[in-house]
Amino acid sequence: MNYKLIFSTVLKVIKIEAFLMLVPLLTSLIYKENCFYSFLITIVVSFTVAHVIQKFIKDDNKHFYAKDGLITVALTWIAVSLIGAIPFVISGEIPSFIDAFFETVSGFTTTGASILSDVESLSKGLLMWRSFSHFIGGMGVLVFIMAITRKTNDRPIHILRAEMPGPIVSKLVPRAKDTAKILYLIYIAITIVLTVMLLFGGMDLFESLTHAFGAAGTGGFGTKNDSIASYSPYIQWTLAIGMLLFGVNFNLYYLLLLKKVGVVLKSTELRTYFIIVLSSIAIITFNIYPLYNNFANAIRSATFQTSSIMTTTGYSTADFNAWPTLSKVVLFMLMFIGGCAGSTAGGLKVSRIIIAFKKIKAELKKLLYPNTVSVIKFEGEKLDESVSNGVGTYVIIYFICFAILTILVSFNGLSFETTISSVSACFNNIGPGFDLVGPMSNYSVFNGFSKVVLSIAMLLGRLEIYPLLLLMIPTTWKRK
Amino acid sequence: MNYKLIFSTVLKVIKIEAFLMLVPLLTSLIYKENCFYSFLITIVVSFTVAHVIQKFIKDDNKHFYAKDGLITVALTWIAVSLIGAIPFVISGEIPSFIDAFFETVSGFTTTGASILSDVESLSKGLLMWRSFSHFIGGMGVLVFIMAITRKTNDRPIHILRAEMPGPIVSKLVPRAKDTAKILYLIYIAITIVLTVMLLFGGMDLFESLTHAFGAAGTGGFGTKNDSIASYSPYIQWTLAIGMLLFGVNFNLYYLLLLKKVGVVLKSTELRTYFIIVLSSIAIITFNIYPLYNNFANAIRSATFQTSSIMTTTGYSTADFNAWPTLSKVVLFMLMFIGGCAGSTAGGLKVSRIIIAFKKIKAELKKLLYPNTVSVIKFEGEKLDESVSNGVGTYVIIYFICFAILTILVSFNGLSFETTISSVSACFNNIGPGFDLVGPMSNYSVFNGFSKVVLSIAMLLGRLEIYPLLLLMIPTTWKRK
Repeated sequence: MNYKLIFSTVLKVIKIEAFLMLVPLLTSLIYKENCFYSFLITIVVSFTVAHVIQKFIKDDNKHFYAKDGLITVALTWIAVSLIGAIPFVISGEIPSFIDAFFETVSGFTTTGASILSDVESLSKGLLMWRSFSHFIGGMGVLVFIMAITRKTNDRPIHILRAEMPGPIVSKLVPRAKDTAKILYLIYIAITIVLTVMLLFGGMDLFESLTHAFGAAGTGGFGTKNDSIASYSPYIQWTLAIGMLLFGVNFNLYYLLLLKKVGVVLKSTELRTYFIIVLSSIAIITFNIYPLYNNFANAIRSATFQTSSIMTTTGYSTADFNAWPTLSKVVLFMLMFIGGCAGSTAGGLKVSRIIIAFKKIKAELKKLLYPNTVSVIKFEGEKLDESVSNGVGTYVIIYFICFAILTILVSFNGLSFETTISSVSACFNNIGPGFDLVGPMSNYSVFNGFSKVVLSIAMLLGRLEIYPLLLLMIPTTWKRK
Repeated sequence: MNYKLIFSTVLKVIKIEAFLMLVPLLTSLIYKENCFYSFLITIVVSFTVAHVIQKFIKDDNKHFYAKDGLITVALTWIAVSLIGAIPFVISGEIPSFIDAFFETVSGFTTTGASILSDVESLSKGLLMWRSFSHFIGGMGVLVFIMAITRKTNDRPIHILRAEMPGPIVSKLVPRAKDTAKILYLIYIAITIVLTVMLLFGGMDLFESLTHAFGAAGTGGFGTKNDSIASYSPYIQWTLAIGMLLFGVNFNLYYLLLLKKVGVVLKSTELRTYFIIVLSSIAIITFNIYPLYNNFANAIRSATFQTSSIMTTTGYSTADFNAWPTLSKVVLFMLMFIGGCAGSTAGGLKVSRIIIAFKKIKAELKKLLYPNTVSVIKFEGEKLDESVSNGVGTYVIIYFICFAILTILVSFNGLSFETTISSVSACFNNIGPGFDLVGPMSNYSVFNGFSKVVLSIAMLLGRLEIYPLLLLMIPTTWKRK
């Protein structure tokens, strides 16, 4: 294990986090809020400490293996969450450290689950920090580092692989560093467009930015207690479409920039994504129509909630907890499917579902014609067998994690529906679930142990399990 | 496709079913019940019709492929369920055919889910038929045929593979037919022992037989409205242990007969099975103790329910629906794990769970040391890669079926918990679920469509998906 490089990277990330905290610091300055000082203290202390320790660790350029990359990613996410929680605590706005940690993990992992009963009482600076953490976490903390640092070695591809969700990671351009840069530029560009669109809808700059950040990272932290419900239909439609766009594989936007529209339209994942979205909207609209008795309202609510849950954002315009079981079950399934690979969304990812279906087809074919060799193709290319078998293993590990997390949370003694849906909502990085964690409620009902378990669930979901799992098994730490 | 052989096998099974109906016929004769005539009519008509049609189909001994075996199995199970439902309908005791079909599928698939609100009002003949169908379905309808017919060709192994649950099917002796015979003899022997033990507990012969059949097939149909709750602690303990024994891989009993005790004790699956059972009992006992305030009652209830749900039997001595969430979640997980491969139990099977964990371990090892080739071993032998990858595919297909079935049942509009747990309970061949389908309730709340969907769920679960799936895809029926 390349300890030196791992820890020096983590420290570098902490320094950059301190730098990024200037955004909420500035916000609190503008609104003349007391939380300004909590940001100032956190920035100065964390930067200084990280800087000093870094002096003692010499960053030698020894070989950096895949496992080093995974461990770096896991440690980084834990570190940024621990430090990101500090301003909430020292400002006194979230006095409990576990609560603040939960809230910060929820931010960086783009989950959007909150322990706050009254979001509106929070200062603007901290609201900005919550939403901005979605934006930072969305494309991956380390992918960001990669995009801005000058050094290039064989490190980046392992990190890109660990932080970009989905079964296949492809570099757009030969150098991973340049891929990261391109992805980040696209990400920022779409966020700016969305911010402007929201400004047109009558939101002020603060509201536009926080909501655009929330949509971009597919996070879901809002600034109002009723999430998006009190905003105009224009805002709701804009955000619904915005969220959908951030659930698309970013590689496709790059292809669009290269004017390869044909390739984009042929993408199996994109088509499947939209088929699932449109059919879910149709089922839910039909199912909730009797509740609204107004087609425009029904289809807007259905579209918004489908988009929000499928992309694992978690904004809400309606209390879908009160919707009929069919709609709830459809939303529950969407939680597990999630967005496209290479997007900011969570869940299993559409590409994995497609590969899973292809694997089943191949298995059935093998039963019918035992002597034929079947090749699985995806997006026009032959899929390596290790990838398709890897999807099988991932689904297994995914459901085993789900089972263990659910048992741990059930010790809390809340209802069956609350327990199951809170784990689903955190593990898939969505935010709201059903029953006591429905869109009009929050996670304050859980005890400290459950909050820690759910924080781990969010991290496991965001990092696609392996990095965190490696951190926990003893073999990783053995000298070979 | 070898249509002739497929249909002649199905017809042969129907004739044998008619023969087996002599057991409930005899019961109704002893108790002088009117349902005697409904059995008589069903037996005479189905036997005659099957016999006449069979005359027209010449059973040519052409090659019989794996797919023919799977299709035969699927069609047989549907046929026996359709015919088995007739006595319920013509006796007028379950007037609706869909209800009778649900009840019969539930019997043969050893699920034990019932649409009857008042089981005690049913005649003894029909109660016997319900329980006897568990016994027939338990070891597989066709495995039974195999054990008694004289012909031997390459047919049996495909059928054994399709009807015996679990990822690996091994023949005990060179000929599949003899394997089937040995398994059936063991099955009958343990059932007889259990019957005698229940007679000792004060049950009459009718009660002992029906309950022994229910435990043997891990079915769960009882003869009382409160299942096993009103029986003595002795009966409850006897059944709890009896159910556990039927959840063990039958190959191990054969090894015991051969006095290979050492091999049996080394079995990873057996050990894991008992570790899961014992730890679940411990957790639940601890968790429900405050409800009972009596250690003997708490541990008996915990043991009985763990055994009943893990083996997918579904008998109950307590309303576990009213237990705390932790206990409910543990039971919910046990539903999915199920018993051992090669037993009469449903669920994913313990061996699949073990292989899944080994696959994850291998995947993590590959991440840590990319150049080492890891071999997965199971029960001391190297596992073929196609088997371990097959487990991955099976888990995927399993959860996709689960998702589709849940969406279909959710159209019924019952609660989230009812919907999810009814599908879990039927798909895993357990019987009772939570909320409206809890142990003190029944499936009469569902509409006709849901009952058909749940019947399909039971068949999919019992036959481990593939046979029924092949029946539904068009490629199977295309001429090549």
